[in-house]
This record gives sequence, C-alpha cells and structure tokens, in this order.
Amino acid sequence: MSDPTADATALAERVQDGELRLYELDDYADAETAAAARREFIECETGASLDSVGEYTFAAESAEPNIENMIGGAQLPMGVAGPVTVDGGAAADEYYLPLATTEGALVASVNRGLGTIEAAGGATARVTDSGMTRAPVFRVAGVAEAETVVEWVADNRERLREAAESTTSHGELLDVDPYVVGDNVFLRFVYDTKDAMGMNMATIATRETAEVIEAETPAEMVALSGNLCSDKKPAAINAVEGRGRTVTADVVLPRDLVNERLDTTPEAMAEGNTRKNLVGSAKAASLGFNAHAANTVAAAFLATGQDAAQVVEGANAITTMDAREEGLYASVSLAALELGTVGGGTGLATQGEALEILGLGGGGDPPGANADAFAEVIATGALAGELSLVAAFCSRHLASAHEELGR
Amino acid sequence: MSDPTADATALAERVQDGELRLYELDDYADAETAAAARREFIECETGASLDSVGEYTFAAESAEPNIENMIGGAQLPMGVAGPVTVDGGAAADEYYLPLATTEGALVASVNRGLGTIEAAGGATARVTDSGMTRAPVFRVAGVAEAETVVEWVADNRERLREAAESTTSHGELLDVDPYVVGDNVFLRFVYDTKDAMGMNMATIATRETAEVIEAETPAEMVALSGNLCSDKKPAAINAVEGRGRTVTADVVLPRDLVNERLDTTPEAMAEGNTRKNLVGSAKAASLGFNAHAANTVAAAFLATGQDAAQVVEGANAITTMDAREEGLYASVSLAALELGTVGGGTGLATQGEALEILGLGGGGDPPGANADAFAEVIATGALAGELSLVAAFCSRHLASAHEELGR
Amino acid sequence: MSDPTADATALAERVQDGELRLYELDDYADAETAAAARREFIECETGASLDSVGEYTFAAESAEPNIENMIGGAQLPMGVAGPVTVDGGAAADEYYLPLATTEGALVASVNRGLGTIEAAGGATARVTDSGMTRAPVFRVAGVAEAETVVEWVADNRERLREAAESTTSHGELLDVDPYVVGDNVFLRFVYDTKDAMGMNMATIATRETAEVIEAETPAEMVALSGNLCSDKKPAAINAVEGRGRTVTADVVLPRDLVNERLDTTPEAMAEGNTRKNLVGSAKAASLGFNAHAANTVAAAFLATGQDAAQVVEGANAITTMDAREEGLYASVSLAALELGTVGGGTGLATQGEALEILGLGGGGDPPGANADAFAEVIATGALAGELSLVAAFCSRHLASAHEELGR
Amino acid sequence: MSDPTADATALAERVQDGELRLYELDDYADAETAAAARREFIECETGASLDSVGEYTFAAESAEPNIENMIGGAQLPMGVAGPVTVDGGAAADEYYLPLATTEGALVASVNRGLGTIEAAGGATARVTDSGMTRAPVFRVAGVAEAETVVEWVADNRERLREAAESTTSHGELLDVDPYVVGDNVFLRFVYDTKDAMGMNMATIATRETAEVIEAETPAEMVALSGNLCSDKKPAAINAVEGRGRTVTADVVLPRDLVNERLDTTPEAMAEGNTRKNLVGSAKAASLGFNAHAANTVAAAFLATGQDAAQVVEGANAITTMDAREEGLYASVSLAALELGTVGGGTGLATQGEALEILGLGGGGDPPGANADAFAEVIATGALAGELSLVAAFCSRHLASAHEELGR
Repeated sequence: MSDPTADATALAERVQDGELRLYELDDYADAETAAAARREFIECETGASLDSVGEYTFAAESAEPNIENMIGGAQLPMGVAGPVTVDGGAAADEYYLPLATTEGALVASVNRGLGTIEAAGGATARVTDSGMTRAPVFRVAGVAEAETVVEWVADNRERLREAAESTTSHGELLDVDPYVVGDNVFLRFVYDTKDAMGMNMATIATRETAEVIEAETPAEMVALSGNLCSDKKPAAINAVEGRGRTVTADVVLPRDLVNERLDTTPEAMAEGNTRKNLVGSAKAASLGFNAHAANTVAAAFLATGQDAAQVVEGANAITTMDAREEGLYASVSLAALELGTVGGGTGLATQGEALEILGLGGGGDPPGANADAFAEVIATGALAGELSLVAAFCSRHLASAHEELGR
Repeated sequence: MSDPTADATALAERVQDGELRLYELDDYADAETAAAARREFIECETGASLDSVGEYTFAAESAEPNIENMIGGAQLPMGVAGPVTVDGGAAADEYYLPLATTEGALVASVNRGLGTIEAAGGATARVTDSGMTRAPVFRVAGVAEAETVVEWVADNRERLREAAESTTSHGELLDVDPYVVGDNVFLRFVYDTKDAMGMNMATIATRETAEVIEAETPAEMVALSGNLCSDKKPAAINAVEGRGRTVTADVVLPRDLVNERLDTTPEAMAEGNTRKNLVGSAKAASLGFNAHAANTVAAAFLATGQDAAQVVEGANAITTMDAREEGLYASVSLAALELGTVGGGTGLATQGEALEILGLGGGGDPPGANADAFAEVIATGALAGELSLVAAFCSRHLASAHEELGR
Repeated sequence: MSDPTADATALAERVQDGELRLYELDDYADAETAAAARREFIECETGASLDSVGEYTFAAESAEPNIENMIGGAQLPMGVAGPVTVDGGAAADEYYLPLATTEGALVASVNRGLGTIEAAGGATARVTDSGMTRAPVFRVAGVAEAETVVEWVADNRERLREAAESTTSHGELLDVDPYVVGDNVFLRFVYDTKDAMGMNMATIATRETAEVIEAETPAEMVALSGNLCSDKKPAAINAVEGRGRTVTADVVLPRDLVNERLDTTPEAMAEGNTRKNLVGSAKAASLGFNAHAANTVAAAFLATGQDAAQVVEGANAITTMDAREEGLYASVSLAALELGTVGGGTGLATQGEALEILGLGGGGDPPGANADAFAEVIATGALAGELSLVAAFCSRHLASAHEELGR
Repeated sequence: MSDPTADATALAERVQDGELRLYELDDYADAETAAAARREFIECETGASLDSVGEYTFAAESAEPNIENMIGGAQLPMGVAGPVTVDGGAAADEYYLPLATTEGALVASVNRGLGTIEAAGGATARVTDSGMTRAPVFRVAGVAEAETVVEWVADNRERLREAAESTTSHGELLDVDPYVVGDNVFLRFVYDTKDAMGMNMATIATRETAEVIEAETPAEMVALSGNLCSDKKPAAINAVEGRGRTVTADVVLPRDLVNERLDTTPEAMAEGNTRKNLVGSAKAASLGFNAHAANTVAAAFLATGQDAAQVVEGANAITTMDAREEGLYASVSLAALELGTVGGGTGLATQGEALEILGLGGGGDPPGANADAFAEVIATGALAGELSLVAAFCSRHLASAHEELGR
C-alpha cells in the first residue's frame, strides 16, 4: 500500500520508530522521496551530512533497476582522452574515450599515449575471441555418473541449445565445455550475447538448460555458478580461455616519434617492458603482465556504466614491446573484457552520454558490433596507458644518464 | 596566463580551430568553464549530448587533483546496507555501509546478509596483516652483482629507512624483501601508511631509497614499480603475502537463523560453498575462492572514493563455511584490501559524505585505526554478500526438493 | 670409423689426452665398452669410484635411444602395492602397482590406502578427457595479421589434419586452439596418441602442419613449442584444459571401514581435507589441491619408464572428501597425467617388467586402452595415498583426544 | 619372529595361501629373500616375468629406509655431462654432472650447453635464498582467536626456536610466517637444514613446536602440513618465496660463440626466449617461465637420490636472455630446488657414487656448503639445457632463412 504523499521526514521517523524498514520505503513513496527519507534517517543515525549525496541529477526512478536502498548518487569526475583512430574489426573511426576516475594523472597519461598513437596513424585492434560464460556445478554420485552426464550433454547439444535460446531473443549458445572433479560436474556454457555484457542473459539461459539436464540425467544442480565461469574472480581459466571479449590493440611507433614524444628509445622501452611487465609479473606469479591496464579499464567502465567488479578480469592483460628496425612495436592483449553497450548501467543518464561520445551506445549493426568496437577502443586506451607509463620510467633514466654525463 | 572571462563557447571554437588543445584549457579558464568548453567541443565533434554529464554538483576545481581533461561528472546511484555491528580490532560500532553500484540486487543482497549477521549479534573482524608495497626493479650485471646488492640492502636497512621516512610525516618503512631473477633485483618495500591507501607515499619514499641504492651499489633502477608490488594486477604475491589490509570477518549463525532467514541449512551452505567456492575455484585455477566478494568491494570503493582499479586485488578472497553443531561458521578473508580514509578520492564531496556515514572519514586515532576499521566493515559486507548468495542457491534447492516431495 | 676392439682403458686414455671427446666414444666402441671407458675417465678426473654405477644389468645398447654419454645405471629400489580392483572405463581388473622410490613409507602408505579401498570393493575410475598437445608460436606482423592466420587455420582444418596425420600411423589430430598475444600466434594442437605418451608424435606431426602454415600464411614459426603446450611446467592451461589423460578415481568407504582401518571418521577426514587440501592450497595459490599425489605419480612413473619431468603436471590434482551418511566419499582428479605403455622408457628391461605386473605393457585393444587403464590405476594409487595420509593426521588427533580423555 | 631359512618359494606360497601378507615378509626373511618371495608371488599372480627387476646389485637391506614391499630394483641409464666450471657462492670447481633419464637427447642437449658455457669461461651461480619449510594448519574458534594465536607465536619466537631445535643437532629455525584464513591459522616454519633436503628434520621439529602451541594457546593442530609448505605441489608460494634453495646461474656468451657453437645470434635467442618462455608462459598462466628446466632437475635428482616428486617445485624457474653488445646474457633462476647431499636416497649405492662424481657427497664444510654447491651446479646444468634448446629452434630458423635466400 504506497503512500505517495508522505514526505521524507515522516517516513524517516517511521523508520526510526521501527515501524518501517529502510528497504520498505519504496512501497510508501516514489523513489526520490524514499531516497530523501533514507538520507534523513541515516543523517540522524550517524551524524553524517548527506547534502552532496542528495544532489544527484538523474531521475531517481530511472535507477531502480540498478540499486536498492538508494540514498542518492556518487559523483565522480569524468574526463576525456583522444582522439585516436582505431582500425579495428568493428571499430573504424576516430574516437574520444570518456574516463571517470579519481586517480590524478590517469587521464593525462592515457591522453599522452593516445596522442602518440595518433601521430603514428592510429592503432590496429581486433576482437580475437568472444563469448559470455556461465558454469553451473552439478552434484553426481561419483565419476562413473559424471561420465554419463557429460556424455548425455555431448549427445544432446542441440536440445540444450534450444532450451537456452528459448529464453532470449538475441543470445546464441556457442559451446558447452565439461569439467569433472570427483563428484562434481561443471558445465561451462558459452554464449554470444551480442551488444550486451550478457551475464543475465547467460544466467537465465543456463538455468533453463540446467533444468533439462536435471530432468534427463542423475545430475543435481548445486549452484548456477560453479566458479568456472568465472565472474569477478582472478581466474586463470579466463586469462587463458577468455570471457567477454578477448581483444588486442597494437601499434608501431616510428623511432623519431619514440624519441620526440616519449623522450626515450624503442630499445629502452622494450627492455623496461620485459623486466617489469614480463619478468616482474612472472616472479609475482601474476595473471597480469602489464603496467596498469586495469586503470584504463576501470575508468572507461565507470564512465560508461559497466560492472565495476569486472575490472578484475580486465586486469588479465599482457603487454608486449619489441624494438624493430622501424621503431617500437607495442601491443596489449586483454583476455577477458566483459562489457556491453546495452543493459546494465548503460541506460543511466551520464553513462549513456559517455557511450554517445564514443558513438557506440545501444545495439550495433550487425548486433555485437558496438560492443566489439568498444572493446577495441578500450584496448587502444589501455595500450596508450602502457606506452605512457613505460616511457615515463625509461625517459627518467635517459634523463639521469644525461645528467651524469654533464649534459 | 589564464583568461577567466573567456566563455566556454569561445574556447571550444579555439580548440576546433586547432589553436588550443583540450588539456590546455585549464590555462585559459577556471575548471568549470574549461569543462564546459570541452563538453561543447566534444558535443560538436561527436554529436553526443552531454547535458547530464554537465550537471555535476561538486565544485569543479575541487576535482583537479583527481582528473584531467574534465568534461563533467559520472553519477552512480548510491544505496546503503546495514546496520551491522562489527567487533573488530579497530571497528567497534554499528555501521551502515554505503554502496555505489549499477548492479541491481547487489545492495539488497548485502543488506539481507548484514541483517542476518546482525540477528546473530554481529560479525567479528580483524586486520591480520597490513602494509603498502612498492617494488622497484634494478638492473645488475648478473647474479654475482645481485648478491652484492642484496647484501648491501640487508646491511643498510636503517639507512634506507631514514631515506624513506625523510619523505613522509606519517609513513614507516616496515620491511624490504629482495627477489633475484637473473640480472634483475626486485626490492619489495613495505610501509605502514596509516589511514592513507598509501601508494603515493610508498612511491615517493621508495624513489628516495632507490637513489641511495643507485648511489651506493652498482644497481641501476629500471622502473620504480617492477610488478612485484603488485598494483592492480591479479598476482599471487598479493594473495599470499597481502597488500594494503589483510582482513577477515566471520560469524556463527545459529541453526534457526539459517533456517528462518536464509531458508536453508548449515550443511547445505557448507556443501555449496565447498563445491563452488573451493573446488570450482580450484579447477578454474583462480586466486579468488569466493562467490562475489569483488562486488561488495567495488561498490564500497566507489561510494567512498577508493581507487576502482584496486578492486582487482580486492577479489583475492577466500570464503569458508563450516557446519558446526551450533550452526554455520562462515568467514571471508580478503588478502589485499587497499583503501584509505584520507587522500585519493576521499576528499570529493559525495565520497567524503559516504565515509561520514561510516563515521570513518579522515585520520583515525591512533593513526591507521580508521582505515583498519573501514577494512573490517568492508570484510563484513563481503561476508554478508557471500552468505546471501550462497543461501540463495541452496534455498532454491531446498525449495525444489520440497516441490518434489509434494510439500 | 669404429674400433670395437679397443678396450675401455685405452679409450679413456685417449679422452684424457684430448684426442677424443666423451660423446665420441660410441663411434669407437660398443655401448658397454664406451660406458666403461667413460667411467674410467670420470673416476680418474673426479676421484669417484663408480663400481655400482657400472653394475647395471640391462644391455647397454638397448638404452641407446634413452641416453647419451652413458656411464652406467642408476638403481632405485622398486616395491609393489595392492592388489586393488579398479572399475574403470578401460581398467577392469585387480592390479598390483609397481612403485620405484627412495622415499621411505611411501609404498606402505599407498599400500594401506589400496587395502582400504579394496576392502570397500575397489575404486571407480574414468579418463574424462584425453589428448597430447604441442603449441608452436608464430611471429606475425601484428594483430591484424594474427586474425588472418587464425582464420586461415579455422578454414583449413582438414588440410592441417592431413598434414599432421601423414607423419604418423596411429595419431589423430583432434583439435587446434588458437591464442593471440600481440604479434604472437600460438596454435595448440591436440592429438590422440593412443598408447604412447605422444610427445614425439605430436612434435613431428605439428612440425608438418607448421610448414603448411608457414607456406600458406604470413606467419613465421619461432619455436615448435611456444609453452602453451605446456610441457614440464606447472601451467594453469594444463590444470584447466588437461594434457595427456585427465582422470578421476573415487571410492565410498563405509563408516566402519573408516573407523577400523583408518582409525578416524568420515567427518574428521572431510574436515581435514578441506582445511589442508582446499583452503591451504587456495592460500598457497597452488595448482595442486592434494596432499601428495605427486609421490604416487613419481613412483609409478619411475617404475614404468615414464618421463620423470612430467611428474610436474601430475601434481595438478584435486582431492575431495565428503562425509556422506553411508561413509566417506573420496576422489582424486588428475588434470594432466602424461603417460604411455609403449615408447620412451617403457622398453627398458626393468620398466617393461613393471608394466607387465600391471598387465598393461604395449599397445592396448582398442589402441589407447592400455594407457587409459594405466592412468586409471595410477589415479587409484594416488587416491590411496591421499586416503592414507589424511587418515594419518586425523587419527593422530583422535588418538590425542583419547589420551586427553584418559582413555 | 623371523625365519631366515625359509626360502623364497615357500614364503611366496604362504602368501598365496593367505597365510602371510606381502608386507609381513620382512618379518620372516632377510630383505633379499623377502624381495625374491614377492617377485615369485607377483609373477604367479600376474604372469609377469621379473627377472630384470630381480637383478638389482645393491644390498637389499641397504634400501630398507627407502622402500617397503620391495620386489627388486628399477634400473635407469645414467649419463654424464660436462665438465663445466662454476663460479658459485659455494661451488668453485670444474664439475661433471651425472644425469639419469630415459629421455633420449637430454644428456646431449645439456652437454652441448655446458660445452658452450665452458667455452665462455664457465657459469656464475648463487644461492640467493635458502630454507626448508613446514606449515601446519591449526583450527581456531574464529578470527579473534586466530589473532591471539598469531600474537602468541610472535611473542614466543624464542621458545618455539628452542622446541624446534631440541629435536635436531644441525637444523636451525629461521622464521615463522603466519597466515590466517577464517578459522584456520597456518604457520610456515622455515629451517636451515644444512646439507640435508630437510623435510624430515623440518617435520619433526615442527611437530615439537606444534605441541607447545597446542599446550599454550587455544589452537588445535589439524595437520602437520597445511599445504602452505608447500611440498610437491605447484604452488605460487614456493615460486615467490622459495623452498629449499633459490638459485640462479648465469653466463655471458660472446657473440662469436653464439654464432659458431649455437649457429644463431644473441638477438634471435633473446627474441625466441621472450616469445616462448615469457609471453607463452604468461598466456599459459604458468609458474614455469622456462623451456625445460624440469628435465635437467629430474635427471640430476634421479642420478643422485633426491626425491623425484620434488621435481614439481624444480620446474618453478625463470629463464631470461638478453642481447647485449658483447653477446648473449642468459640466466636461469630456480625458485625452489629441494635437495640434499646427505639423507634420503643419497645413501644408495649408485646415487652415492653419482654424488661422488660431483665431489659433493656427504656434509659440506661449512655445513650446507655441499648442498649449496650442488644447487649451483644443477642451476648451471639447467641453464645449459635452456641455451641448447632455445638455440636449436633459433638456428633452425636461421637455416631455413638461408635456404630461402638461396644460400
């Protein structure tokens, strides 16, 4: 029974009296009033002043699919880097990259890198693999039964595809990979989710297939995600096999550009990259062989309404630098960039506008093309960040070498 | 020479004419005008409309340490979960946890978990290890010289400590751990950075020590970060040795609470946790043995102005669940929670208010206590998220079991 | 020009005079004489006495495919464990498992475990995945060219299959999985190598396909193994995707058996396994979630002429233990057991006899069946070792609990 | 009650009649007769002929600490590589390296590499870290109690040291590192075990300390090894922190040596190493950044009586190659080489002789020096194997490049 006329103060008091719970306020007021009531209650309980949190300018009700117990908005500064030309499989334009961050110097670093790339004629980029995954875990009696289940799945691929695709107008089931560990069967379903990041689509489709499997085999599902997906965890399965988009951006920077713009040499950058990003990460037993790819991924994700926790997988990136006769070859390969241009937080006001800056909001033509292009632009941004940071520490050394030589 | 009267349109035109670059605008106008000019230029270049991005309500100049090429703000909805009582090493209160996210159901999930924990009397939490790291890589002639350098470092610990601490009023050098790989020497410096996340402090202090090392030994620094730090990469060195705060939260939920609130049993939850979070993650070759700890970390980080890219390390968490006679023992241990209550994005308007909700803004008493308490509260929030999600898939099964039995 | 009449002493002197090199001796004498000459030379050079090394009893020339610069033989004690009944996909018998080791108590431990398994009616085992891999790395100009190469490979699978299979009478090409990192293309070729471990077969077949790829695409091979195979390295790609045989063995031990034979309870063993093998290995950032599977693998490998360095991959094993109402469910899942019953060291005298003990020497019927069965028996042996060791530390505690209680 | 006169046949019959078990035979006959009886029984049961297994030439009773249920011996061919001069921290001589293997071409490959190293004046090597570990896991009530236990351990380091060292005449407790995961406390004890590999010493000493901890704190030991040791598992904790000896060997090969001996160039080798051993292993999510270090480790371990299952940790190696003006810098850094020159299988006849070839059998002067030197020689051998294999694939390409150019 909602009571739209109740003002925030009255509602806050009812919460204080224990009459209502914070999450019930949406039943008694519109989203904006409910948020105001919560702020009032929280201010009273904690002594905090929430004026700024209350100054959000999006329509409160528009955020309802994205939040519960809303008290207002967090505001992060947004900057822009670029332009950069990306010659991609889907990207084929000059792009400005919106970045929301609180880390000073990040936008400047990416911007410097993009400027250098642009001076070299832009970057090349390709999505080399693609697919959103969901991997339920099933309980079986033992390995003999596991074998039966895995064989049934192999023999009934078409039926599972139909079940999965009955739940979605866009998604396609690409693959089902089985993994057996004792009395556990993990089935890693891989979907083409087009321009959506696709976790929900994959989850719903997989639930449908799981019901078929439970009905037809002795397997009993324990959890719709058995952590072989693997979502928001730093897992080698994603670093190796990919999740979302697997994407590489690369560039050859002519020698004079490296000298003039980056104040160093291809040889110094290649050496620095090997010692830090390859050998250092090897010794750290890392899944991330890069300098700070996650920074660019995080800032681009925040600007455009992606899932911030999926920055975890965005850090599974390998940066290579190679001194060639003509200059510096540099690349960044991101194994698991999970993103979308529809759904999730992309519909929020500022986030939607950020996607417009890229010209990649909404569904692509063909479907998936916008998300592919977005992945290629982020990879280019990450490459820019790598070039900029590696050059920074290499040029520092050239500089000090100069000083030592009295120049 | 800034020109504060120039209006945004005029500036945007000068950029379009190639007279000015986007990043130079701050020299010609105040931060707000410069941002407006950039929006105008970008709108013109890309066809995007940036009205919402321009509706940020923080003072533009206040964001200057956090952003370059600012065009406005990204607004994310912020919710609140709790209250929950945390019996920590530093935390000792009832807390509301602010969460900024675009993932629907996340706040509700954490809130349900916190409610259950609170009904059990709250969570226990402890920071079990603490230290911010920076690990430069040095080039040496070979392993014989590497040995010399490592010995020099061991013999001159006090001198390095003095050099490091000369750069900071708060920070303390705790340790220097050497790693040798061929002609590379990595020195992992560990600092107590009190209530600051401490990357900058650690970087500046380490630069100072590196200069001493370069002056006194044959080692030549290649990069101030050699990736054994390891920052924003999913590296085992952090999962094992920690970075920032290593923190555990745990709780014992009485049996009836598990039944009534979570609609399942301790045994079912323990089994589900083992199959998914332990065995599933093992098979995925993961550094994250949890369901979705990164979700809570990311949302708390975004609300409070932490570095979003450090969610990567926040995912290095192990969730355990054990059915005891009295109920369910559950814990989350986060190996590397890098956070602060001062510096970085904590000074931004909405982020500062979010810290006020927690009562943990600014420096603690004693120094470090606020950041410790914050880590303990986030760990409790992550625990809540784990309980809620694991219970969800377990109760689904109880439910279907009930249906099968005709109940 | 060989000189079979020269005796060892004369040859040793010619080596000492610098006239001949150690490895040239095979050109001047039969294998036995050459070995004797080397021993004499080495004894002289180092002061060592090599009498025992010279007392090998196999025919020296029979070892020629396995060794160079032979000086004699190493002798390890060999024991036997069992018998145990294995209900496998290929194994279907009672087996004695030969084990060569120098680690005291290992054979006894495996033997105790096998005895317990046998008392429960034997183990169940299945090879759940199979395939030997070789993954060359190719250099390309950049990611655009990488895409072209990968597409060519996808479009010419049949041609590559023909090239590969032209080099082998038994092997079959099962799959080619591409991985792109910057200007590197890795192609992971997967083969069914039947009863051979198959590295040589896979290498030769892949060389042939690589030549086709080099002729038809711009890719240039850098190395026939690009480390995504991955051979003799602890790599997650093997732990996740398997190499050689992926195999699980499991058993349900009735409660009274656990009590009487192992002196503990299913609950204690399940708890111990979780704390040590799952949580402990998780915290160690390990690819091995087991107690000592590598011990059994190593000892079985040494007894039967397998490649000892592939024990590395044999350690990629997950042990699960679950207390069920009827008793203890226990399993070991080995991700990457690389073994064969033909080729390699299996033709040596003692090693061939060890395979005879198993009844699995030579090619199977159908081809591959012997190696499958062998994998299932080793998995059962590893399971036995796990049961024995976990029981040992659990019963120790029961024991001390008893003491505390004055019993 | 032993019955030394019983002959093997009679004993075998008693086993067949179910009167005796295989492992009881040692109570009724000397080791040699018991082994003969087992062979007879196994031959009868399985149809195998075990003549060669029975032709072992070591004294059966001398193997009693190393084996149970002995049936005879496995004989592997042993070869020798070298000589090579090693300028080590402990090694300071010209060494021949004994290698037992069944992998054809391995000894030749190491030998070629050692020859090239020797032509460059020998290798440099250093043990850069050292310590054998044992890490029991303790159960506590929760994280609050965990903190208490960890603090007690920190405050009572001296008492634990005394307890540990009361069990050993040689060993020293170097460190105790605590790790907390929920209600688990792992304590990683690090020992200096001198010339012994030291697992037994570490285990016995740790058991003693664990009893003190159990007596004085609420912690209850679950297992003496909690897998953070970590023994015979491919764990990052060892790759990062080391176990046994952490050792590097390196060399600079002058350009003409690379050209003449290895038929390639420093640049080609550096590139090949980067693409395969660094980038390839990175993409494979590996802990082994090398070509085949495990091969050399395994063969040296088998020759000298080391624990074959510890080859697992021996594979945690990073190979670097760098083209310098003067030639090729190459190094191998093994993180966790667990070996000894006393104890274990080093006392067996052929194994002891193999250590004599090295001149490193028995305890060193000072204690630990022999094991240090041995580690340095193995590292040099592994370096040789890396050089040889990387050169092989690089020269193949030079060759084909020559052909293409019509030369």
